[in-house]
Amino acid sequence: MRFLHTADWHIGKKLHDYSLVEEQKDAFEQIKQIAKEKAVDAVVVAGDLYDRSLPSETSVALVNEMLQELNLQAKLPLLVISGNHDSATRLATGSDWFKQTDFYLHTSLAEAFEPVEFADTQFFLLPYFEMQAARNYFETETLTNLNEAMKLIVAELEKKFDPAKKHVLVAHFFAVGSLKTDSETKLEIGGLDAVSPELFEKFDYVALGHLHDRNALKAERVRYSGSLLKYSISEAKRPKGVWLIDTDPFTCEGLELTPLNDVKVLCDSYENLTTEGYQKVGQHDYISIELTDEQPILDVVGKLRQYFPQLLDVRRKHKKNHAKKIIQVEQKTPLELFDDFFLQVTGKEPTKLQQKWARESLLEITKAGEPNETTQD
Amino acid sequence: MRFLHTADWHIGKKLHDYSLVEEQKDAFEQIKQIAKEKAVDAVVVAGDLYDRSLPSETSVALVNEMLQELNLQAKLPLLVISGNHDSATRLATGSDWFKQTDFYLHTSLAEAFEPVEFADTQFFLLPYFEMQAARNYFETETLTNLNEAMKLIVAELEKKFDPAKKHVLVAHFFAVGSLKTDSETKLEIGGLDAVSPELFEKFDYVALGHLHDRNALKAERVRYSGSLLKYSISEAKRPKGVWLIDTDPFTCEGLELTPLNDVKVLCDSYENLTTEGYQKVGQHDYISIELTDEQPILDVVGKLRQYFPQLLDVRRKHKKNHAKKIIQVEQKTPLELFDDFFLQVTGKEPTKLQQKWARESLLEITKAGEPNETTQD
Repeated sequence: MRFLHTADWHIGKKLHDYSLVEEQKDAFEQIKQIAKEKAVDAVVVAGDLYDRSLPSETSVALVNEMLQELNLQAKLPLLVISGNHDSATRLATGSDWFKQTDFYLHTSLAEAFEPVEFADTQFFLLPYFEMQAARNYFETETLTNLNEAMKLIVAELEKKFDPAKKHVLVAHFFAVGSLKTDSETKLEIGGLDAVSPELFEKFDYVALGHLHDRNALKAERVRYSGSLLKYSISEAKRPKGVWLIDTDPFTCEGLELTPLNDVKVLCDSYENLTTEGYQKVGQHDYISIELTDEQPILDVVGKLRQYFPQLLDVRRKHKKNHAKKIIQVEQKTPLELFDDFFLQVTGKEPTKLQQKWARESLLEITKAGEPNETTQD
Repeated sequence: MRFLHTADWHIGKKLHDYSLVEEQKDAFEQIKQIAKEKAVDAVVVAGDLYDRSLPSETSVALVNEMLQELNLQAKLPLLVISGNHDSATRLATGSDWFKQTDFYLHTSLAEAFEPVEFADTQFFLLPYFEMQAARNYFETETLTNLNEAMKLIVAELEKKFDPAKKHVLVAHFFAVGSLKTDSETKLEIGGLDAVSPELFEKFDYVALGHLHDRNALKAERVRYSGSLLKYSISEAKRPKGVWLIDTDPFTCEGLELTPLNDVKVLCDSYENLTTEGYQKVGQHDYISIELTDEQPILDVVGKLRQYFPQLLDVRRKHKKNHAKKIIQVEQKTPLELFDDFFLQVTGKEPTKLQQKWARESLLEITKAGEPNETTQD
């Protein structure tokens, strides 16, 4: 049995207000191409097909088309679960009909215990579920954490094992020991919702969804596929892809997806970025800039956007110096601030006469702003 | 060919804030029962399955279950179109898979021109569409009204006619000449969106959705099925049901649905309603009351709700008299108003002594309420 493991498509997701629809379509086409070229027997999608429980009509149309292309046109069996970003109820629409063409879409806990068999393998499709669903299923109100619930679930699943077959679990949760970064911390809900990967040692493979880094967990047989695209700046250096799994003998090959437009972080000076730097990235790449300059630059975002049309943000590398400067600024008199400003804009110190004009103008402004005091002038 | 014609389920619709889910489930069960008992070859649903383009999860789950029960469990072929209340995109989810079990769900204009053939009949499923969709389809920007668009559509459809077969159109629009009442006026969008039923004379039957009164149009072969339930007070006296159609020879039989809880208008006095009247309706019926009483009754809605738990509204039959009385009231002195009030509450005129007490109390109140005038007392 050979299958592709993907997850976390998050169709409809935006990056800093930029729509990623074209990038999502392109990445999907690559997955479809890989599936055909590698002649897989099935495609596994481990949850979060949508980015929101109430997706837009555009997102609904796109996901419908993707699933139709894979299953009905390319005749690929599909093994899909709902993730925490999907509405299980909405995603389930049509699932009773999908089975006829080997498209298995499980959206409720109870369905996890109905193995789907393909060739030499039993697949168990365990969707994302809330604790209360586990309490209801096992008829116990004392379940307090996901790891305990998962122990009960695994025990139930193992009872369904056909010893003559391989056993693959498809699931969507946060696994203890997963590598944390800025991006992934957001995804973790808390200690009570973390599952120990050791629970699954009797499975031949566990195809996970939830974390966006495909290398989040350092385990040979328990893997996150990672997201379809880089969905945050913190993922800029994390390549995206799918796992190609063979069950007998077990092999796992990582295949990369090349984004239509990449997410990149550039750390350089304004001078370099606007002369050579911008030529080193794609015109439509999504760019986050870390400026090495220390001096202020007027309308720096507007100016950089001319070179990087899909600019995500501009940060300063030397934040501490800047913070210090702000404190210094607050302690200066208005005339001292004028001298600093004049120097920055013109590159020269103001002359004695210019300082006099500034002082007189400042007095005028102060008077005009405080009419009650003019009589005391 | 024998089929049931229903439409305008409006799943999720509320009546004056009351959920109608239980009534909708019950009416659907009756349709399923009729379909089985009458051994129909198919069920036609002519649009507006949902009440809103963005239905709640509860509504999605209910519609999914209904369609699954009819098509997969009862093995009934389904011929369904989207109406103006449905989101065509959302409703289309799964439709590519539905065909495998003879469930034809058309949600775009182009699909109308792909006839669905069952036994001796060609069905043309024309969903609700916007004028711009017709302009795009026929590649003409000059189309200005629906009747013109429909002429082009009918001409196209007639080209697809197999002369050896019967021809049934399923559509969702406002037909010229339909009987208008309070409820239906709301549904008509305007003269530009009205279609002449004469256009369809070459069809053996036109199964319409949109108007909620099954008798809205007085034509033998062009009919509205009407809604699943009474969805407004103005429909209280309009029975709901489905049409049972035989194509050869053509017969059309009206079959009524009995609502789990009915919508009724009661026109009676407070006295009668609270002694005998309330016993003549179901405890959970939705009641609109037209009071024949002319005198005011304190907290009349609160009191009536004790007898009619699902009270929709309370109106007065003698509105004009009331308006006159209000004018009279405004012209009376406070003491005259006291005399009237005393009479209404006690049923007797106040005695001279009672009138004196009232006068003195009124003086006291006037004083206390106008402190600035006490010095002039």
